[in-house]
Amino acid sequence: MEFSSKLIEKAVNEMAQLPGIGRRTALRLVLHLLKQPLEQTRFLSEALVKMREEIKFCSSCHNISDAAICEICANPKRDQAIICVVEDIRDVMAIENTGQFKGIYHVLGGKISPMEGVGPSQLTIQSLVEKVKNEQVAEIIFALSSTMEGDTTNFYIYKQIKSFAVKTSTIARGIAVGDELEYADEVTLGRSILQRIPFETTMR
Amino acid sequence: MEFSSKLIEKAVNEMAQLPGIGRRTALRLVLHLLKQPLEQTRFLSEALVKMREEIKFCSSCHNISDAAICEICANPKRDQAIICVVEDIRDVMAIENTGQFKGIYHVLGGKISPMEGVGPSQLTIQSLVEKVKNEQVAEIIFALSSTMEGDTTNFYIYKQIKSFAVKTSTIARGIAVGDELEYADEVTLGRSILQRIPFETTMR
Repeated sequence: MEFSSKLIEKAVNEMAQLPGIGRRTALRLVLHLLKQPLEQTRFLSEALVKMREEIKFCSSCHNISDAAICEICANPKRDQAIICVVEDIRDVMAIENTGQFKGIYHVLGGKISPMEGVGPSQLTIQSLVEKVKNEQVAEIIFALSSTMEGDTTNFYIYKQIKSFAVKTSTIARGIAVGDELEYADEVTLGRSILQRIPFETTMR
Repeated sequence: MEFSSKLIEKAVNEMAQLPGIGRRTALRLVLHLLKQPLEQTRFLSEALVKMREEIKFCSSCHNISDAAICEICANPKRDQAIICVVEDIRDVMAIENTGQFKGIYHVLGGKISPMEGVGPSQLTIQSLVEKVKNEQVAEIIFALSSTMEGDTTNFYIYKQIKSFAVKTSTIARGIAVGDELEYADEVTLGRSILQRIPFETTMR
């Protein structure tokens, strides 16, 4: 793709470094900005740079935060003894949106993945183990995705903390609410039979 | 979608104003930038703002340009008497990539579309008519997309310039090179029969 303008070319090249955005899409976005008022491009650029420069990570749970301790960890109404371990910030947002969890989080920053060169030391596992060791943690809930990497990470953390008096649990896997059984995959359906729960608990 | 950080929220909102980028995708892009070095965000922002602030449009053909007259119009090797009328900048790039056109362009900036509220006055039609009137233009090639809007625009321009001694043509429509006839749509196939060309011309 040849550009008649170096300015466009540079903007497209930078845009195309974002994941899932190829050079064609980047060009479409850049040409769109060209048709919009100058302010839109300024606001976008300022918001991105400000976000990148000023964002902090909660020193306790590693969630993104505008302060040194995030709103969730700082909230006295949240149960500090129940920690939900998640992969990244989007998982925190997804669980928060359900309104069903009143504990706090621990954001790992990824999963152990030898294929992608991610080892335990690149994640915030050590800080989670310290928390379990030093504080009054009653329960650790694993909420990683159920892939090989997720299972490996769960197991690695489990080994590190099993010597302490802490309960461990994992979020329920099963048929999604409203889904038809006939279209469910075998693994999920099989697991939902094996890990069946007392009917009374669904009536709460 | 609730955000634990106002900085993230603002960046996502700005990003989601780009066409084809929803709030979920915007969040993914913003979180990606967070994981990258600060420079990447700075370079991206600077490239966008610089592009938007400094880009010029060629005063002759309305193509984007780093100078007052674009490289194509300023090139003495290009035939200034043959003008290819296109909808936007991407069409110029597409035709330039073929290396088959040695004339110059005229970028309309869109098509006449009453549905989208685009009238002839919002396009650069007047400046094209002036060019035909004042300069030695031998041929106008219509290269708009063959939709109702494209045809309307072609016809509108044709009416404005038909009184001047200028040849008009339109790019060939037909079965794409390498395509199977059986999968071609009827309109295109029908047109390719009606507008058949001397076999000798394909042997050049």
